[in-house]
Amino acid sequence: MAEMSLHKPFPAADVPRWDHETDVAVVGFGAAGACAAIEARSAGAEVLLFERNSGSGGASALSGGEIYIGGSGGTDAQRSAGFEDATEDFARYLKMAGGPCADEAKCDLYARESLAHYEWLKAQGVPYRGNFLPGKHIEPVDDSTLIWSGSEAAAPFRDHAKPAPRGHVIQHMGWGGGRPLVDILEARARDAGVRVMTDARVVALIEDGGHIIGLIARIDNASRFIRAHQGVVLATGGFAMNPDMLRRYAPLTSKIHDPIGEKDDGTGILLGMGAGGDAIHMDQFFTTCPWTMPESHAYGVFVNEQGQRFINEDCYHGRVSRTMLDQPGSKVFLLLDMAHFVQPLEIARIAIAATGETWEEVEAELEMPTGTLAATMAFYNRHAHEGRDPLFDKQAPILTPLDQGPFVALELNFDSSYFSFFTLGGLRTDVDGRVLDRAGASVPGLYAAGRCTSGLPAWGHGYSSGLSLADCTFFGRQAGRTVAAVTITAAELA
Amino acid sequence: MAEMSLHKPFPAADVPRWDHETDVAVVGFGAAGACAAIEARSAGAEVLLFERNSGSGGASALSGGEIYIGGSGGTDAQRSAGFEDATEDFARYLKMAGGPCADEAKCDLYARESLAHYEWLKAQGVPYRGNFLPGKHIEPVDDSTLIWSGSEAAAPFRDHAKPAPRGHVIQHMGWGGGRPLVDILEARARDAGVRVMTDARVVALIEDGGHIIGLIARIDNASRFIRAHQGVVLATGGFAMNPDMLRRYAPLTSKIHDPIGEKDDGTGILLGMGAGGDAIHMDQFFTTCPWTMPESHAYGVFVNEQGQRFINEDCYHGRVSRTMLDQPGSKVFLLLDMAHFVQPLEIARIAIAATGETWEEVEAELEMPTGTLAATMAFYNRHAHEGRDPLFDKQAPILTPLDQGPFVALELNFDSSYFSFFTLGGLRTDVDGRVLDRAGASVPGLYAAGRCTSGLPAWGHGYSSGLSLADCTFFGRQAGRTVAAVTITAAELA
Repeated sequence: MAEMSLHKPFPAADVPRWDHETDVAVVGFGAAGACAAIEARSAGAEVLLFERNSGSGGASALSGGEIYIGGSGGTDAQRSAGFEDATEDFARYLKMAGGPCADEAKCDLYARESLAHYEWLKAQGVPYRGNFLPGKHIEPVDDSTLIWSGSEAAAPFRDHAKPAPRGHVIQHMGWGGGRPLVDILEARARDAGVRVMTDARVVALIEDGGHIIGLIARIDNASRFIRAHQGVVLATGGFAMNPDMLRRYAPLTSKIHDPIGEKDDGTGILLGMGAGGDAIHMDQFFTTCPWTMPESHAYGVFVNEQGQRFINEDCYHGRVSRTMLDQPGSKVFLLLDMAHFVQPLEIARIAIAATGETWEEVEAELEMPTGTLAATMAFYNRHAHEGRDPLFDKQAPILTPLDQGPFVALELNFDSSYFSFFTLGGLRTDVDGRVLDRAGASVPGLYAAGRCTSGLPAWGHGYSSGLSLADCTFFGRQAGRTVAAVTITAAELA
Repeated sequence: MAEMSLHKPFPAADVPRWDHETDVAVVGFGAAGACAAIEARSAGAEVLLFERNSGSGGASALSGGEIYIGGSGGTDAQRSAGFEDATEDFARYLKMAGGPCADEAKCDLYARESLAHYEWLKAQGVPYRGNFLPGKHIEPVDDSTLIWSGSEAAAPFRDHAKPAPRGHVIQHMGWGGGRPLVDILEARARDAGVRVMTDARVVALIEDGGHIIGLIARIDNASRFIRAHQGVVLATGGFAMNPDMLRRYAPLTSKIHDPIGEKDDGTGILLGMGAGGDAIHMDQFFTTCPWTMPESHAYGVFVNEQGQRFINEDCYHGRVSRTMLDQPGSKVFLLLDMAHFVQPLEIARIAIAATGETWEEVEAELEMPTGTLAATMAFYNRHAHEGRDPLFDKQAPILTPLDQGPFVALELNFDSSYFSFFTLGGLRTDVDGRVLDRAGASVPGLYAAGRCTSGLPAWGHGYSSGLSLADCTFFGRQAGRTVAAVTITAAELA
């Protein structure tokens, strides 16, 4: 018998028996897998879903349950808060957020279909209060629906796409809306008749003449051979928890130390590559140090070890954090006055590096050369009083003078502060969820969605909250519908 | 019959006939392929070498013929110029140059074996005059042997590894030593009895039970089936000339527009991946805008569009150029006084953006806010007079005050200036040249060297001249020796 491997599909000829048969097999029970399963089942396919853990969740359940939604004039929540959101602006923002890695076809499709997707989510029972919460939040502090969750209102995005808040969060008091979101999707999947196998780790795909026709799962310490007549959907997440893959494909993550994930070890990416799938933009990752908590810290100014500013700090916290890693050295400093300083969250491991009555004193205490940090702040304050930031075009009200001491410099240190990260690179798929090979053709029988693919959140410098769950839920549905529409001939069923 | 594809090995069972048989097939006749062929043939193997062009060359022949060599106390050229070069310092520099992508085993091995490799090159007939040419050169202006070709004497490298010049250039008047270097290696290969097939494009590998046993080449417009009993060595270069691969794997190169290469379209990487090989660090690339020519421009200061310095300008020109691309915006400025300004080379497409009697005038002409560029230069000059650069630790003599006007600002624009580039990511190989799969096991019968692999030059920010040819020639030899040592059983020959 052939070897079972993540890296190479198992030949159908060596399958000793079929332990289970289904039309569609879905691997992974986070938001992407759940949405793929719901859609495939709703289209009439039998669906078997495999989850290596004892229940649903994945990285989706660790998130805030926030989904990036807009376009078509705006959602109910956007419109009632006075924000129009044209599809063109939404699409343009998505492409800028994808930077050099943007998949234009995915951005265009999602911009057009996003509102319909929002309605679908509601139809699944995801509750939305419908209101807008102003301010700068990582997640809503209450059960509000809509928050600014990206760099929409910041340069250079604001110059190319009319800004609107687009982070739509499940109605849920406080942080952690991801868990109830997945619970709802799980209930819908089960209601629809999706059969779920938990504690079932997929260890290989099965192929026959270049077609993926099933998989092997370890269940109760035995190998189970699963026939999936119409195809397999991979929805296993990224590879933030796989140190070996990080070293080979995303080594810049070695600067930081806090992967976010739930066993996100790249299984689906490896399975897909082993079946001939292409993996793209594997170096990209999201990272953030939660420096905007407390919210007043959003009014601070960042300088690198040279005492230079490096970004308009009104960008999304993840874009700012990713840009920190581009700076020379191993740390950056967040500069605040006492009007804005609050003790940082313990979890952030952000330390006070210096204090002073003047910026000159702070500069000296940081042992920076005279005329660096203090000159930066003098320049910044002079222009902030005029309401402008000629270097990076930061906007009011975040743009505010910090010239009434005493002052404090907080140290965000790549080695010791909390820089969470997850990976963005993965399998290349078309807009319908088909896994593509390196020649651009689809791998027959293989589909994928979520963070085991490269999708809407493709570029670390452009990440915005809700992009990943938008991608997981929408393109999970796409994959589910596509695989459910596969026509099986009698010969193939034989 | 199965389809012939770069992306999937052709099954041996479908081979209609063997048009040629050999012990070892080498693909690509640049420096890596030539060295692999010489070593395999010298070890007694029959070698057939396939080159898609009409003659040898590849990107190697477009280079300066410079090879990064050192360690073991120093080469003749290093020692006669007064440079000792301990193996430990050499290895440490190589690892820093590889940054987060460094392959430590390759760095350690090459640091130990580099001097013996230099002797081997001489034994092949590569001439070295043996002298050191001081100064900052991209390639020697005369026929000198040794130049500074990296960031050895610059921070932070100098703080961790004792600096020594290590760029060893074939004796050749002026630029362009790559062509005569390849000519010599070609002559040695032919003398040794390597059979060379030119105008022979390899379109597929052939596999039998997971072993690579040959290849298919297009020769005279027909498919030729080649049996390689001991294995195939891929030495086809990078993928700078493949826009589709660049978009998928190294999209940051879309900022710049001048790939260097000789049909470097990633063929070998695709063939290797198709056979199960892992490709790593695919986002990495070398780039340079030849701003140190004329040499006096090396004394200039770089600022970004914010008027901030961003690096110690005494680093290798490629490290500085790569860091330019990290800056916000689409251009940077090289600031010079008249003592150092010379009309830039036409090829560089570097324009004069502003002039002025004072830095304030230059700042105004560039429409930068008051107190940006001028403040940067005042700070720089004040410390340069004291012989120090507290921001980036640039060293004398490159560290020199620029405070006697008139001044000039040259614009290096990513869109319009000449930023050449080539890719650094590729197949993962062990130190013996075996192609490794994603599980870390070797792909039986498949070997690779040069820029179709990730090797010594692994990280764009750490590139140093001569690293790529060092990697091509040394690890090309390694691959050639390894494949020549493969023992073929009578059964396999049947």
